[in-house]
Amino acid sequence: MSERPKVVIIGGGFGGLWAANALANKPVDVTLIDRKNHHVFQPLLYQVATAVLSPGEIAQPLRRILHNAKNVEVILGEVVGFDTTNEKVRLEDGSELGFDYLIVAAGARHSYFGNDVWETSAPGLKTLEDAVEMRRRILLAFELAERDAYLTGKQRQLNFVVVGGGPTGVELAGAIADIARQALAKDFKAIDTRKARVILFEGSDRVLGTFTPDLTDSAKKQLEDLGVEVRLNSFVSDIAPGKVKVSDEWIDCDVVLWATGVAASPLGKQLGVETDKAGRVFVETDLSLPGHKNIFIIGDMASIKRENGEPVPGVSPAAMQMGRATAKNVLADLKGKARTDFRYVDKGSMATIGRSKAIAHLFGMKFKGFIAWTMWLWLHVFFLIGFRNRIVVMVEWFWAYLTRERSARLITGDAEDLHDALAFIEGKEAVEFPNDRSTKRKAKARSL
Amino acid sequence: MSERPKVVIIGGGFGGLWAANALANKPVDVTLIDRKNHHVFQPLLYQVATAVLSPGEIAQPLRRILHNAKNVEVILGEVVGFDTTNEKVRLEDGSELGFDYLIVAAGARHSYFGNDVWETSAPGLKTLEDAVEMRRRILLAFELAERDAYLTGKQRQLNFVVVGGGPTGVELAGAIADIARQALAKDFKAIDTRKARVILFEGSDRVLGTFTPDLTDSAKKQLEDLGVEVRLNSFVSDIAPGKVKVSDEWIDCDVVLWATGVAASPLGKQLGVETDKAGRVFVETDLSLPGHKNIFIIGDMASIKRENGEPVPGVSPAAMQMGRATAKNVLADLKGKARTDFRYVDKGSMATIGRSKAIAHLFGMKFKGFIAWTMWLWLHVFFLIGFRNRIVVMVEWFWAYLTRERSARLITGDAEDLHDALAFIEGKEAVEFPNDRSTKRKAKARSL
Repeated sequence: MSERPKVVIIGGGFGGLWAANALANKPVDVTLIDRKNHHVFQPLLYQVATAVLSPGEIAQPLRRILHNAKNVEVILGEVVGFDTTNEKVRLEDGSELGFDYLIVAAGARHSYFGNDVWETSAPGLKTLEDAVEMRRRILLAFELAERDAYLTGKQRQLNFVVVGGGPTGVELAGAIADIARQALAKDFKAIDTRKARVILFEGSDRVLGTFTPDLTDSAKKQLEDLGVEVRLNSFVSDIAPGKVKVSDEWIDCDVVLWATGVAASPLGKQLGVETDKAGRVFVETDLSLPGHKNIFIIGDMASIKRENGEPVPGVSPAAMQMGRATAKNVLADLKGKARTDFRYVDKGSMATIGRSKAIAHLFGMKFKGFIAWTMWLWLHVFFLIGFRNRIVVMVEWFWAYLTRERSARLITGDAEDLHDALAFIEGKEAVEFPNDRSTKRKAKARSL
Repeated sequence: MSERPKVVIIGGGFGGLWAANALANKPVDVTLIDRKNHHVFQPLLYQVATAVLSPGEIAQPLRRILHNAKNVEVILGEVVGFDTTNEKVRLEDGSELGFDYLIVAAGARHSYFGNDVWETSAPGLKTLEDAVEMRRRILLAFELAERDAYLTGKQRQLNFVVVGGGPTGVELAGAIADIARQALAKDFKAIDTRKARVILFEGSDRVLGTFTPDLTDSAKKQLEDLGVEVRLNSFVSDIAPGKVKVSDEWIDCDVVLWATGVAASPLGKQLGVETDKAGRVFVETDLSLPGHKNIFIIGDMASIKRENGEPVPGVSPAAMQMGRATAKNVLADLKGKARTDFRYVDKGSMATIGRSKAIAHLFGMKFKGFIAWTMWLWLHVFFLIGFRNRIVVMVEWFWAYLTRERSARLITGDAEDLHDALAFIEGKEAVEFPNDRSTKRKAKARSL
């Protein structure tokens, strides 16, 4: 075995992958552990959920991305615990991996504020599986409405509900409205897909609340131009099959998508230190775990303040910066140099709303509509991991722009689930939602 | 309601889709019913199973393909029975659809010769879900071997077994050998993927038995050049987790793929007429159901002889020809003209084996190797449904050819299934395989 320090990285998201990349071909042995074999380009997940892109177009195998890094080994596995005293991590099959340095970058999932039972009715969007499940529900709703209208001669109202007016919620709502009004309109004959309602519920008094009020107002107007009903100051207080409760009103809906709430990976709580309400670990200024200089927590799992006192946001640029900064501090240690405190550099932010619609705040300048949208487009293609994916995604987008088509409109899953799905989505039958794995697995079985 | 004759088509495969297409904008009202919302280009399914193409690249929504056919309505649904007397089909939710003409084109699945219990251990390849499940098992086998080698320091033998030396079996075996020797070799660090064995078992004395002996010999040699072990006259007599029994010998394997046996859709048996052993319906010379001139059975569900006394093969060109011929006979009826007997036109056949490797027998001429392979390539891109798919697939193939990369290498599914999968694939634990839906569903839950 080598005498070089062993660095274990948990998670192949933006934080972990950027750390591994910064340690590539340096005098350390790196092991990157992830539960999946691929890195997902999360900012484009909503495009898989809304049938623009295929899963393979926004994901790349981790070992492919890192195959030139001779000192980095990628291992498929799930970390279930730590032995910080003996410097080991434990995998799901009981095997252990020793480390000299540990970088924990296991990310976050959406949270249901204690109502995990809502997940079956209102899936969130963090993984490829989530995105495919959303796509399945959206397309299935249109298919079942068409079938209904064909068999009965009557078109019923189709309602899509998106909970949460952050970037993901706005992207989803805009894209569904776009699909209903453009891509699907000419393919459905018994129903007029343009009559579908898309309702976006946001608890605060504006969407995309991290932007300045003028951009926020523009975003709301752009959403409404697409046909989205934006309901501000609206809290969803309950969810059941086929309906959501907002304030005291139950609203019928065919599909509910969850785009709010965030919970850091439960691994944070296993490190034996203090976490915030969302499960994020309070880290030192160099992102290390209090009391353990050789353990770092980065990305969405870390709770750390910027110089202006505000928290570093849970966005991919922050995770990338933390990954790189941590790798540098590990290498500084090895050279006997002092560590550098983490400083988040905010390069600005942008949010897309729909075709030719977006807002951006970059380099102190504000952009709206078409110009913001093209900036978003180029930036996201540029940052998409993997040369091949970029070409294919550009072809897809160019095609979608020219033709207003959505190309990845597949509903997949077991045939025998069709009837279940019909009952489930329409809320026609009482469906039980015990929050156990078998139910989740069954729900997943419907997705592909 | 319209007075025009109502044609119901069951199944959106090559037969049903070609029939619908030939009836497009003719004086009939057509309803196409399928359990899926998409047509799958089955000849390229093995490329999804072996991570070259993504599911979305070989499938298109049926209503998209037919959106210019104003008289064709596409309905998502599963036909579960017939009332031939009252001319109705029954859907899975009990609703009924009347018809004046019925075209049954529900296809076939692989059959396990009465050993359905083998399906969980040895999946077949008929649907996108099947392909993604195969891809998952193949990639997971390499990942788990890498992890094992990394944790234990020892590389164990990886064995891939393909059962059946027809076109699908040959394609799968060749593609897995290709992956192991090229695309994956540089990405895995603890194992040498080139040491993986790929064993193809064929019960008869040659692979691709429908071709002439010289082409067949060439195919075997081309397979062996790729590193596939071809075992002829070898019957698989039993399958259990992690092993297959050939003659009296149990052979350990990590992945078993099933590429033999065919069973027509069980709908054939519900028509109340005689079927052959594979469940195919013996049809009249015009493909109609004996005793029912207005019901046609086409594609893989039909049993009919050619002029030379041989059966019409269950291949996509035959299904397309049957679809078109049936549509013509329906239209002939309406004009009061005589029907035409179905005549299968054999334009030749080709089989691909791997990169630059194939055989073809077209227009009375025989081709081998690179030239046969390029012919296969162009023909398949040409026939691929949908303009966009063609461009994207060409980009993918060009990329794959240049770089020897496989681009769709995603393992997806629930994280909690990882440990199950490990035990399952390695056959470490006793796993029960009751042949019920919940097991299948659980197996599907692992796939995406």
